[in-house]
Amino acid sequence: MTAVTYDDVLDAAVRISGHVLRTPVLEISPGLFLKLELLQHSGSFKVRGAFNRILSAGTLPAAGVIAASGGNHGLAVAHAARSLGVRAEIFVPEVTSPVKVAGLRALGAHTTQVGAIYSEAAEAAAKRAAETGALAVHAYDQAEVLAGQGTTGLEIMEQTGGVDTIVVAVGGGGLAAGTTLGARAGGDAPRIVAVEPHAIPTLHEALRAGRPVPVQVGGVAADALGATQLGALAFEVLSGVGVESVLVEDKAIIAARRALWERHRLVAEPAGAAAYAALLSGVHRPADGERVAVVVCGSNTDPATLSGAAG
Amino acid sequence: MTAVTYDDVLDAAVRISGHVLRTPVLEISPGLFLKLELLQHSGSFKVRGAFNRILSAGTLPAAGVIAASGGNHGLAVAHAARSLGVRAEIFVPEVTSPVKVAGLRALGAHTTQVGAIYSEAAEAAAKRAAETGALAVHAYDQAEVLAGQGTTGLEIMEQTGGVDTIVVAVGGGGLAAGTTLGARAGGDAPRIVAVEPHAIPTLHEALRAGRPVPVQVGGVAADALGATQLGALAFEVLSGVGVESVLVEDKAIIAARRALWERHRLVAEPAGAAAYAALLSGVHRPADGERVAVVVCGSNTDPATLSGAAG
Repeated sequence: MTAVTYDDVLDAAVRISGHVLRTPVLEISPGLFLKLELLQHSGSFKVRGAFNRILSAGTLPAAGVIAASGGNHGLAVAHAARSLGVRAEIFVPEVTSPVKVAGLRALGAHTTQVGAIYSEAAEAAAKRAAETGALAVHAYDQAEVLAGQGTTGLEIMEQTGGVDTIVVAVGGGGLAAGTTLGARAGGDAPRIVAVEPHAIPTLHEALRAGRPVPVQVGGVAADALGATQLGALAFEVLSGVGVESVLVEDKAIIAARRALWERHRLVAEPAGAAAYAALLSGVHRPADGERVAVVVCGSNTDPATLSGAAG
Repeated sequence: MTAVTYDDVLDAAVRISGHVLRTPVLEISPGLFLKLELLQHSGSFKVRGAFNRILSAGTLPAAGVIAASGGNHGLAVAHAARSLGVRAEIFVPEVTSPVKVAGLRALGAHTTQVGAIYSEAAEAAAKRAAETGALAVHAYDQAEVLAGQGTTGLEIMEQTGGVDTIVVAVGGGGLAAGTTLGARAGGDAPRIVAVEPHAIPTLHEALRAGRPVPVQVGGVAADALGATQLGALAFEVLSGVGVESVLVEDKAIIAARRALWERHRLVAEPAGAAAYAALLSGVHRPADGERVAVVVCGSNTDPATLSGAAG
C-alpha cells in the first residue's frame, strides 16, 4: 500500500468536481486517444492538484495559500485561489518573464520575485509560509496534489471505456504517478509509459539509482518539466508498478508540438507535447489493436510560435 | 417533408464514420457545451459534407471531384479526395492568398486560380465540370452536403445527453440546417439559434424576404461565412422550424475569438467564433437551467493573431 491510493483519487474526483473541467478525449485514429488536458482551466492539469490540496485543508488560514512557481503550478494555484476566494501568494525567481508575473497578478495573486533561481524562490516561500501560516501547495510532492492529478487517469478510463496503455509526461512525477493510481479502475490496470526529455531524465535516473536523485535540467520543456528530481511520492508509485520509462529528444518534442497544431489544431506547450512525441517519434510503438491514451497536458505557450504551420 | 430529412443525416453518419472525427464536446460550465468541431480534419466541419457527397456518388468519374473555394470547403474537398484516393480539382479566384493555394496543393488538389472574384471561379469550375464529368461538391446547397454537416447535430445530442438550444453560425446555411435536422433525435427538437455577422446577414434577409436574396458580404468572417445568399435547401429547413435568427457585431466576434483562446485554449477562426459571440455578447441569453450547445466550427487561421493573449 502506497502513501496515496486509488481511493484518494476517487475522493479527489468528488472534491474537485465542478471546480475543474472534465476535459474531453479526442480519438484521432481507432484506439488512439488524446486526453485534452491542455484545455483545462489555467492551461494545464495542475489545477486538479491545486484544488484538491486547498479543498482538503478544511478551514484555511487567514494568510491563504502559498506556492513557488513561475510556471503552470503558479498559474494553477492562483486560479484555484481566486476561484475559491482565497488569498494567494506566489514566489517566483527574478528570471521569470514579466509576462508570467503579469499573468499571476492578473489572477489576483500576490506575486513576489526573489532569488536568482527557482530553489531560492522556493526557500523564500517556505520561510514566508512559516511566518504567516499560509497553506503551502507543492507542485507535485504532496499526497493531495498527487491524488488530484490522478483524476486525469480516472477520467481517461471512463471516457475511453478503457485503454491498454497511457502515455504521460514526467517532470516531478505528480501527473504520471497520479494517473497511474487513477487509472487502476478495475483489475486490469493499463501500462504506464512515462515520457521525459533526454534533457531532464528525473524518473529515468531515479529508477537507475533506486531513489530520486538530482539531474541536470535543460532543453525545450524545462519551463514545465524542469524539476531537479522526481518527487518521493511519485517514485514510490511509479517504481511500484514497473512503469516503462522512455526518453525523447527535444527535436521530437518540437515536431510533436507542430503536428498537434497542423493535424489536430491543438496548441500545446513543449512539455504538453512530450508524451505525444514518444508516439510520433516511434519511441513507443503500439502493438496491433493496442488501445492507447496520450495525455496532452499543457497549453501555456505563445501561439505565434506555431505561425505558418497551418494551411 | 423537406428535401433533406433526419433519416438522411442518420445515413450520412454511417457513411462518413471512420472518415471524420467524432469531435468532442467540452462542458465549460454546467449545461453549457462547446462542440469542438474546430478540431475536425482539415480544420472545419466541411469534411462531413464533402465525404458524404463523395461517398454517396457510388462509382466516381475518372475526372474525380471538383469544387470552387479557396477556403474551408476547398480544404475539406481536397482532404476528403486525398483520403479516398480520388482526383480533386479546386478552382479559386486570383485574390486567394498564396498560402491557401499552397495548402490546397499540399493536399494534392489540382488547383486553378481564375477570375477576379469567387463567382467567376465558381463559373469556371462549373464549365470545367461539364467538360470533364467530374462530381461537383457544392459548399452548402446540395442534399448530401447538408446531410453530412447534419451529423454535427446528431453527435451533439448524443454527447451532451440532449440540449434545449443549439447556437450555430450561418453562411450558406449548410451547417445550421444540417444541424437542425440532425438534432431532431426524439420528439423534442432543440431550439436553433442561427448566428450571422451584421456584415453578412444571408439568413436574416432571407427570412425577411421570404426567400434567399443576395446580400452584401463583408467583415471579419467573410472568408468563411461570405456566401452571397442562403442556400435554397437551408432556407427550406431553417424557415420550416422557426429558427431564431440573430446578428452579432464584428467586434463581438473578435472578442469571442480572443476569449476562446484566453479562457479555453481553443484557436478558432472568426467564423468559428461567431456562434460563441452570440452568447458572450449577450445577444443570446440562456434562461436559468437552459442547456446550450455552441458549435465552434473552424480553426483555419494563423495562431500568431492570438499572440499575447495568454498568460
